[in-house]
Amino acid sequence: MANTGTSDPLHHPFNRAIRLTATGADRYQGQITADYANFIGPFGGTLAAVLLQAVCLSPQRMGTPLVLTVNFGGPVDDSPFTVTARATRTNRSSQHWVMDLQQHGETPLTASAIVAERRDSWTNQERAFPGVPAPQDCPQLPTQKLSRWVSNYEMRVVRGIPADFSGSAAEQDSSETVLWVRDQPQRALDFLSLAAMADSFFPRLFIRRPTMVPVGTVSLSTYFHADQVELDALGSDFLLACARAKRFHKGFHDQSAELWSRDGQLLVSTQQMVYFKS
Amino acid sequence: MANTGTSDPLHHPFNRAIRLTATGADRYQGQITADYANFIGPFGGTLAAVLLQAVCLSPQRMGTPLVLTVNFGGPVDDSPFTVTARATRTNRSSQHWVMDLQQHGETPLTASAIVAERRDSWTNQERAFPGVPAPQDCPQLPTQKLSRWVSNYEMRVVRGIPADFSGSAAEQDSSETVLWVRDQPQRALDFLSLAAMADSFFPRLFIRRPTMVPVGTVSLSTYFHADQVELDALGSDFLLACARAKRFHKGFHDQSAELWSRDGQLLVSTQQMVYFKS
Repeated sequence: MANTGTSDPLHHPFNRAIRLTATGADRYQGQITADYANFIGPFGGTLAAVLLQAVCLSPQRMGTPLVLTVNFGGPVDDSPFTVTARATRTNRSSQHWVMDLQQHGETPLTASAIVAERRDSWTNQERAFPGVPAPQDCPQLPTQKLSRWVSNYEMRVVRGIPADFSGSAAEQDSSETVLWVRDQPQRALDFLSLAAMADSFFPRLFIRRPTMVPVGTVSLSTYFHADQVELDALGSDFLLACARAKRFHKGFHDQSAELWSRDGQLLVSTQQMVYFKS
Repeated sequence: MANTGTSDPLHHPFNRAIRLTATGADRYQGQITADYANFIGPFGGTLAAVLLQAVCLSPQRMGTPLVLTVNFGGPVDDSPFTVTARATRTNRSSQHWVMDLQQHGETPLTASAIVAERRDSWTNQERAFPGVPAPQDCPQLPTQKLSRWVSNYEMRVVRGIPADFSGSAAEQDSSETVLWVRDQPQRALDFLSLAAMADSFFPRLFIRRPTMVPVGTVSLSTYFHADQVELDALGSDFLLACARAKRFHKGFHDQSAELWSRDGQLLVSTQQMVYFKS
């Protein structure tokens, strides 16, 4: 079984934040710690990681994460919650799961995951790695005035921070963000931290417009191209995180994003639909 | 309530293929017709449409489709199946659903959907519409030797058909496909036909390599940018369908794709993870 982060000691704030305690078969209790607080409730990336962790902890699990979808239906607060995970289908090379998160008698989050036994195959990376300066040559995003969860990441910006952070009062033509990101303090990469980092982008609307309006991810799908062996070789190194939107329309916008290793391997692709009020 | 295709007469083969009969509260029976047969079982796009239709048919539904995720866990054959749909959360502007498809006592497909009440907002289309010839200036894909479902679409190819179809024995450098597509016979666009067309791309592996190996979508997420009013204005016109893969690795590859109106509106973004054996 690959390292899914569950065996890490609890000395890292991410492990404490996403800790789950079994309360039954494929049923767990958790509570996101204040370290990962967002404006309202916890950082969505920690919730995504918690839902994936419920799968990873199951003795039934066969394989490592391939796809994770999380639908954010309602608010989750900083009190305890219950996560359930159920395998719906086990094949020779993949296994399908459905999960949910319950709190205060409601089900704010539903989710699904596919884990897979990866086998060697024809391999080709078609998408080109963006040419960017090394992390040490990029300015670090100051996190003091931002939501608390952001301080758990070291972000070194190539381009595309929120127009409001940059002091720009003008609308921007591009929603693209390119930045280096790693856990702060550093932590060996695993599927759980990738699931969280895949949701660590500021809303694309804020890159385009210097306005702080209500926004929220309604659906997030993350596709893991890398396996744990490849992640182990990267340790806790910076990943290059790139995101953009295609269309802002009638209160919703999409986000397409990628996470890359420093040597140009595409580790993760991820897609979101985001609600916004403006 | 917007037209979701459910009120269309059954004279169109697509409507016959995805027909559902209520057998209980949010429980339906269906059976994909032979018109939409694939190599093994029905075309996945019709299964995606059937799962979305179960939501659309519910009297509880509030809003029109925004996000659809379908996880393909096992084979579905051409015999009857049961689809269930359950609302997990209703908000002021969105409603979350989980669905599944059962056949022969198993659950080969699980799915989720979000429907939304769209409201006017700041609007911007950032992704540029590709410059391409008009449909009548593009050669029609011959469908005689292909799976039967393909003959339900008129596809006019700009570039990127499977290397095997094109008579090329060489590997290609790009997995990109650009083609015009519409229902054949023509049918007014709705969310159900968009859900199917979003899965109408040939596997990206076959664009790159002239080999016919086992492939199958394991997860499909479709994001609807357009609402029914915009679709109504398009009638049954051609859509421009564009797809590409980012990475082929250890038996899986992704696919990112878009469906555009002829006048350059981005109607749909969609993402897949695909299993392949090679």
